[in-house]
Amino acid sequence: MESVKSQSYEVHLGQLAEAALKQHIAKINYSKVFVLVDENTKEHCLPSFKEMLNHPIDHIFEIKSGEEHKHIYTCLDLWKQLSNFDGDRKSLLINLGGGVITDMGGFVASTFKRGIDFINIPTTLLSMVDASIGGKTGVDLGALKNQIGVINQPQMVLVFPEFLKTLDPRQVTSGYAEMLKHGLIMDAEYWQNLKTDGNFTDASCIQRSIALKNEVVLEDPTEKGLRKILNFGHTLGHAIESYCLENPNKKTLLHGEAIAVGMILEGYLSHELKGLPKLSLLEIKDVFLQYFDLVEFDDNDIRAILQLLKYDKKNSHGDVNFVLLQSIGTAVTDVKVPVELFYKAFAYYRE
Amino acid sequence: MESVKSQSYEVHLGQLAEAALKQHIAKINYSKVFVLVDENTKEHCLPSFKEMLNHPIDHIFEIKSGEEHKHIYTCLDLWKQLSNFDGDRKSLLINLGGGVITDMGGFVASTFKRGIDFINIPTTLLSMVDASIGGKTGVDLGALKNQIGVINQPQMVLVFPEFLKTLDPRQVTSGYAEMLKHGLIMDAEYWQNLKTDGNFTDASCIQRSIALKNEVVLEDPTEKGLRKILNFGHTLGHAIESYCLENPNKKTLLHGEAIAVGMILEGYLSHELKGLPKLSLLEIKDVFLQYFDLVEFDDNDIRAILQLLKYDKKNSHGDVNFVLLQSIGTAVTDVKVPVELFYKAFAYYRE
Repeated sequence: MESVKSQSYEVHLGQLAEAALKQHIAKINYSKVFVLVDENTKEHCLPSFKEMLNHPIDHIFEIKSGEEHKHIYTCLDLWKQLSNFDGDRKSLLINLGGGVITDMGGFVASTFKRGIDFINIPTTLLSMVDASIGGKTGVDLGALKNQIGVINQPQMVLVFPEFLKTLDPRQVTSGYAEMLKHGLIMDAEYWQNLKTDGNFTDASCIQRSIALKNEVVLEDPTEKGLRKILNFGHTLGHAIESYCLENPNKKTLLHGEAIAVGMILEGYLSHELKGLPKLSLLEIKDVFLQYFDLVEFDDNDIRAILQLLKYDKKNSHGDVNFVLLQSIGTAVTDVKVPVELFYKAFAYYRE
Repeated sequence: MESVKSQSYEVHLGQLAEAALKQHIAKINYSKVFVLVDENTKEHCLPSFKEMLNHPIDHIFEIKSGEEHKHIYTCLDLWKQLSNFDGDRKSLLINLGGGVITDMGGFVASTFKRGIDFINIPTTLLSMVDASIGGKTGVDLGALKNQIGVINQPQMVLVFPEFLKTLDPRQVTSGYAEMLKHGLIMDAEYWQNLKTDGNFTDASCIQRSIALKNEVVLEDPTEKGLRKILNFGHTLGHAIESYCLENPNKKTLLHGEAIAVGMILEGYLSHELKGLPKLSLLEIKDVFLQYFDLVEFDDNDIRAILQLLKYDKKNSHGDVNFVLLQSIGTAVTDVKVPVELFYKAFAYYRE
């Protein structure tokens, strides 16, 4: 499986990943090698990773899994531990886990002594096809996702599709939502293949999603223009995700589950405002509802979710800008949406 | 007074600074303009700054002055406030204060929503000649200085020497230590002028120090090589500063006061290991003790200070690397120092 070249680093898959990691560690004389895991990757991924690495690990940092631990207090604990275990500027941090581990571990590494090397090994489908590319690192601020962070590149990203076998199926489906998004915003053929084929955990599908996202990121590393298209489904999706996380009466949604709802809602907005054909809208709703359960929202929920919109990182000057679809495979950015359409979009989702 | 061009930004002094600020604010349509102050700069600098700015300020964030507040909890509070006051990615943060304000404000801005614009207006001599250049941002981790941070450049740095008139003379002298360092490590003529002239708060002296530091930073932005020379006096100086800050029985030292001690100690090491002439060493000790009180250290203090050395950010692989002088005006980096010499250096300082 061919590697994908991003800015200053490459994404390697499978056997190539193993070779690349060994070569890198042998070449750079790191003073310390640290690994960050959560209780799941410690149990399911760390043993085979250690065997593969075949190099001493100075310390393994373990954090609790889950978005609710992706905050600055966990970082503070990790910074202290890095200090206590004599981490210095020539140390390496290997982040072995899903998006929480790679986002937070990347941030901790990027800010410890003004930046040490890190390598991301995403272990969920979502983090393989999304968080692995683009150099976004960070943590949440209360209910506000990824409010604190920097853009900084890892030394390399290593993707081992066999880790997916250790995942809860719900986790795998969550990643599928991002892959479908890649098709929707820039590759209609990929959307067609993905939605009918079903073998989305194959290395070839993962690689295509990585390559698509990489194309976007390379053209616009700091999110001034094109990169915004990656936010399709995310403007409302993030607000929904935050709301459900904070609200004890709501089932917590995985990221992919939240943006699946977001993509149906923003698909509706696309139909209303940007001429996305009705048939395409129906197709989008149909595909997502085939894989993702319908989420119940009452009017109070919707009002609270819309309140959260204004905190989205991508907003400026108080306006909420949306990425919408003109057609499947073609996205447009910076679309302002009248408030009443949000309610109509939720009504369409609940129909 | 000519501006100093650094990487992506310029340092402007005096009237040019005022013009540059106004032009920048007029050109960039910021959604919000925030200012960060402490109780001192709020009282002494903010009124004249507001008058000069002549532009609406959306909110003024006030933090308590002092190194002991330069930690992640203050950042957390500032991030929350930025969110609460609807800060978005098109917001500007103006840091009006000394090194604590510019280091911490720079870090908060660099990490809020993965980075918003910031402008530094250093109000102490130390921050004008040191923190203003080089893009280092960050906060302390317990007693460990600047353990958490990133390298990121402000939009511009504005230096108004008249702010120095509002400072406690002890604060001004603290900055003088860094200026003397610039002479010691790279410009013997500047050292000679500074030590005899005494008008070190003149714009021309400030500008020369800025230009010297800038030369170094431009050649080595990420501290891989040359930039290390700026750490002369800082390896022991930082440990002394941290130790005195944490120890209730010790008088807290200003940064310049701590590195003044550090430069005498490292001057001694330079004489022992790198052939710095005895006369130069005496001259260094003489100049610093003329401006800075002798600090008392007993044997327990010295042992605790040496313990702290190993946490210095610049160390890797467990070795402590020093920057030493071959002569006044010429520094060498990466010198390893035998432990027994540290004790001799303190003995020389106490003589």
